Amino acid sequence: MPEMTVNLNQEIRQVKIHSNMGINDLVSQFSGCAFGAGKLAEAVDIYEKMLLDKDCVKFFGLAGAMVPAGMRQIVVDLIRDRCIDILVTTGANLVHDIIESTGLSHYKGTNIVDDTELRRESINRIYDVYIPEPHFSVLEEKLQEIFDRIEKKDLSIRKFLSKIGEQIADKNSILRSAYDSEVPIYCPAIQDSILGLQAWLYKEMKTLNVDVFADMKDFIDRCYEAKRAGVIIIGGGVPKNFILQSMLVTPKEFDYAVQLTMDRPEAGGLSGATLEEARSWGKVGAKAQVVTVYSDATITLPIIVAGVRSRLANLKKRTKKD
Amino acid sequence: MPEMTVNLNQEIRQVKIHSNMGINDLVSQFSGCAFGAGKLAEAVDIYEKMLLDKDCVKFFGLAGAMVPAGMRQIVVDLIRDRCIDILVTTGANLVHDIIESTGLSHYKGTNIVDDTELRRESINRIYDVYIPEPHFSVLEEKLQEIFDRIEKKDLSIRKFLSKIGEQIADKNSILRSAYDSEVPIYCPAIQDSILGLQAWLYKEMKTLNVDVFADMKDFIDRCYEAKRAGVIIIGGGVPKNFILQSMLVTPKEFDYAVQLTMDRPEAGGLSGATLEEARSWGKVGAKAQVVTVYSDATITLPIIVAGVRSRLANLKKRTKKD
Amino acid sequence: MPEMTVNLNQEIRQVKIHSNMGINDLVSQFSGCAFGAGKLAEAVDIYEKMLLDKDCVKFFGLAGAMVPAGMRQIVVDLIRDRCIDILVTTGANLVHDIIESTGLSHYKGTNIVDDTELRRESINRIYDVYIPEPHFSVLEEKLQEIFDRIEKKDLSIRKFLSKIGEQIADKNSILRSAYDSEVPIYCPAIQDSILGLQAWLYKEMKTLNVDVFADMKDFIDRCYEAKRAGVIIIGGGVPKNFILQSMLVTPKEFDYAVQLTMDRPEAGGLSGATLEEARSWGKVGAKAQVVTVYSDATITLPIIVAGVRSRLANLKKRTKKD
Amino acid sequence: MPEMTVNLNQEIRQVKIHSNMGINDLVSQFSGCAFGAGKLAEAVDIYEKMLLDKDCVKFFGLAGAMVPAGMRQIVVDLIRDRCIDILVTTGANLVHDIIESTGLSHYKGTNIVDDTELRRESINRIYDVYIPEPHFSVLEEKLQEIFDRIEKKDLSIRKFLSKIGEQIADKNSILRSAYDSEVPIYCPAIQDSILGLQAWLYKEMKTLNVDVFADMKDFIDRCYEAKRAGVIIIGGGVPKNFILQSMLVTPKEFDYAVQLTMDRPEAGGLSGATLEEARSWGKVGAKAQVVTVYSDATITLPIIVAGVRSRLANLKKRTKKD
Repeated sequence: MPEMTVNLNQEIRQVKIHSNMGINDLVSQFSGCAFGAGKLAEAVDIYEKMLLDKDCVKFFGLAGAMVPAGMRQIVVDLIRDRCIDILVTTGANLVHDIIESTGLSHYKGTNIVDDTELRRESINRIYDVYIPEPHFSVLEEKLQEIFDRIEKKDLSIRKFLSKIGEQIADKNSILRSAYDSEVPIYCPAIQDSILGLQAWLYKEMKTLNVDVFADMKDFIDRCYEAKRAGVIIIGGGVPKNFILQSMLVTPKEFDYAVQLTMDRPEAGGLSGATLEEARSWGKVGAKAQVVTVYSDATITLPIIVAGVRSRLANLKKRTKKD
Repeated sequence: MPEMTVNLNQEIRQVKIHSNMGINDLVSQFSGCAFGAGKLAEAVDIYEKMLLDKDCVKFFGLAGAMVPAGMRQIVVDLIRDRCIDILVTTGANLVHDIIESTGLSHYKGTNIVDDTELRRESINRIYDVYIPEPHFSVLEEKLQEIFDRIEKKDLSIRKFLSKIGEQIADKNSILRSAYDSEVPIYCPAIQDSILGLQAWLYKEMKTLNVDVFADMKDFIDRCYEAKRAGVIIIGGGVPKNFILQSMLVTPKEFDYAVQLTMDRPEAGGLSGATLEEARSWGKVGAKAQVVTVYSDATITLPIIVAGVRSRLANLKKRTKKD
Repeated sequence: MPEMTVNLNQEIRQVKIHSNMGINDLVSQFSGCAFGAGKLAEAVDIYEKMLLDKDCVKFFGLAGAMVPAGMRQIVVDLIRDRCIDILVTTGANLVHDIIESTGLSHYKGTNIVDDTELRRESINRIYDVYIPEPHFSVLEEKLQEIFDRIEKKDLSIRKFLSKIGEQIADKNSILRSAYDSEVPIYCPAIQDSILGLQAWLYKEMKTLNVDVFADMKDFIDRCYEAKRAGVIIIGGGVPKNFILQSMLVTPKEFDYAVQLTMDRPEAGGLSGATLEEARSWGKVGAKAQVVTVYSDATITLPIIVAGVRSRLANLKKRTKKD
Repeated sequence: MPEMTVNLNQEIRQVKIHSNMGINDLVSQFSGCAFGAGKLAEAVDIYEKMLLDKDCVKFFGLAGAMVPAGMRQIVVDLIRDRCIDILVTTGANLVHDIIESTGLSHYKGTNIVDDTELRRESINRIYDVYIPEPHFSVLEEKLQEIFDRIEKKDLSIRKFLSKIGEQIADKNSILRSAYDSEVPIYCPAIQDSILGLQAWLYKEMKTLNVDVFADMKDFIDRCYEAKRAGVIIIGGGVPKNFILQSMLVTPKEFDYAVQLTMDRPEAGGLSGATLEEARSWGKVGAKAQVVTVYSDATITLPIIVAGVRSRLANLKKRTKKD
């Protein structure tokens, strides 16, 4: 900050709540606020700009148990509307996506519980989500059947996931919608999931070879080709780093970046690292628009998407009228 | 949990976002979600029940820099609509309330800044809020003038604040709206604020005696008299504990409690303590409905208030029709 | 940062663990580390400098349930050795200090528990500390007896606490050691504790008048008179702000500051605020040495004190030899 | 908790600090404390039991930027002393391990910095660690050279890493010490690192095929064969889940588990999930001894290792005497 010019142009505006107000109205009011509310409004602005920027390739990093928590349809709709061009996620989110696609449900439970008792009743817990263990037997059968059906030559993780997506009937599946919309899904740590365990089981009996590094060329090529690039990061984890590091081997940098997380910077891990830090690496550009909202993503993601969708719809309406 | 009955009745429902959707619609969908989103929906349910419960005295604990962040009007409107019966807050929130009531503003800044440079330019920072130091000179003048004007006999902190509120012209002030609506404001750590420093300055020259414990009888009486009691806790701090502990000397317990905070339980401090812990003390009843939303309160408070206001307005409309 | 000179002089040194190594050896090694370990080593350096600086007045802000967790003796020893000149704390820490001084104990429990069951068994919980409710009856009796005994004229909170300390027999009490060592204890939110509730009970029957603002002159005078000032902040809360704000009305600023906390800056509350932010207010000087260690204070406080004590003892030994 | 028996046998003992005290003495005292200090003492107890249990296979999950922070030698020594039987880590820790093995250093910097300026000066930042970008060119050369040298037939990630370790001269390298000690290293998300980027670069020109799922049989076999199993988890991330999930396909469960993290449970991600939750899945046994220390791992890991090493050394001495 060689020449600091302290800006006192923008007054804090006090939020005014009306009954039956729209999310977009609230987000607009948040733009006059500080702390999380102000950051959330910035996130909407940045995602809107990303979507309106025709030259921008839109990456989406999805970590955390977002599907079990109820965020699956949001991701599916973003894929189908091509608000996501490239998805990087965890094996867990895909596993729970497949479970839901078989018609089985996750259940609301409580985090204040005796886990030994849950064990006895064969219920697996993810904070306050309950999953009956027999669901995983259904999943196993389903996956083994799918693995049998797909062509297994020359596989990368992305191709493997695309072929799985092709086999899923449920249109509201992340894997299926990505297949339909030709949105590639990358999952660098696929072994680290029940999908990985099932792949191992299959491999015990039959042939399944998936090359670890096969996706990288493909992924980096997309980074190279992007005139501009933006990313929405949910949670952190492998998806965050895998997306951001890809720019290191290109002459480019991310132009837009939004992160929604509860992780914190002070412990030094990448999940909690600020997006400012990413500038020092050249992952994010010096002039890139970035914001991190430190708040629960199951709350902030729906609000951001609702805000952006409202704005784009209203823009369309206005454009039509003209 | 002597007999655990694991409940698998409530399926997780995946959120579906529409453009121009209302906040209340989103909150209703959140009731099918887990993690923060699910807790937020519970918070709306509990606050709604509190407001519909005619016999319930509604406490509100306000810590954190909520006024500088843009949450002042929300609190004022809740007071004027008597959705708050008793407010317990920090000196800081009152200081910033008075600053805004003089017509001066807080400003949006950035938390990534050289604070030494800010110091040179006489700008005080609260995370990403900037306050020009001269504001505090205006405040000083205002406060000394008010202190001169009010009757200073037999003061408790509550009475002192009520008299200050009486002197404030701005109807959108927390202090003034509380005075107008006869909502008492308690501020146990009033010395811990610039209001406290100004009181000291005044006391250096003139007489000002406020008894530390004078409010407690009054406060505890209100607890005693309450048929039922509910509390909304923003942040934690002294307001949280002061409200909850008051029930210890009555035969009653809180029936409803909602906490919005980013603090965490593991460090053992009261701000981050779960509301379950409060049950062990008898501060919160065994059957009380409680929820903590671990997320940024500048985001969750407006959503909860918007959700509750919408429901109450719709209820009114429906009742009218009948 | 008008002229940035990026410093690459200090290499990270990898920690080497030996069996039976001393704490001071580990702290020395931490000075070559990053993240929390590096900050902890800085905290030891700063506290050591504070203690060696003859002109420095040493403030200590104690929030959080540090006494129930087992940190009482550390504070007592720091007081007796005059490593604390002025203590600012919460009512809760004093309440638990008095309980221990009656010979009653806190107990180790578990945070994974049914609080309704604890309630039934009259056990109060602070995270994983259990306190039998009858302890508070003993405390009540003790306090009412003490209140009766002390002179109640012209009281400020500090004087009130000093008089209570005088009545406590247990030399290992914070209140008693502070009385013995003439270390003043300030407790701005004394009402916000069972001590406050007991004062109210007393006031119901007899006379007890304590002026809210009476301590401020005294406290600010001490700030004025300090040639230099340093502060150790445990947790945050009212003690943190009360100490830091006091410098606002003096021409001085803190020269040394260490904070140990798990709170985070992003939510905007003062407890989690960085000490950098305090520079913008002039609470902490532009050249002050400051560090925040974001880690559990029940771990970091003992290590810092052990590190500083070792260094001072070794210094003494060396000085003797010469 | 069908029959709760509230245990009030163990009193909180107040910590007493001496100058020049040993770490093990402090840890012993922590066993009488609550909150983080108490949990830390439990962690030492559990790790000690793990190490004394001849039938226990000792897993170690290492996430976070532990090598740049100064924790490399600790891990190396644990491997060489066979206190780690199986290491699961992130690509990043291995990348920084190789950098250090070339004789290049990481540097202590500050987290309060203008990252755009760092970018201009080609310095990459990890919180308060600085790495000159040219280090990565050295790394690139080194890795391409190593890749050329190793046999590339029939590779799994584990074998690939073992072959890299074989080529590293520095005895204080994690990769080399693991090779020497025949401790397998698993790194499920190897692509998510500069090691992955370098593998891609190599693959652009030459042949490199590493199968994604090839390690799983091997890893799960080790789980099957373990009579008993214990795990130390640093941070969370992929290593945590990969280790814990492996037990799902065996009839066994972990008997001991320690986690050191700053992540929190409420956001629902696996990194912050409690080890209790893992019981519901059968990853951790109903009677397993588990503890999570929510504190900075760069502080807690060295203390735990120092505590355990001291106890084992003292045990040896005593045994010798007999």
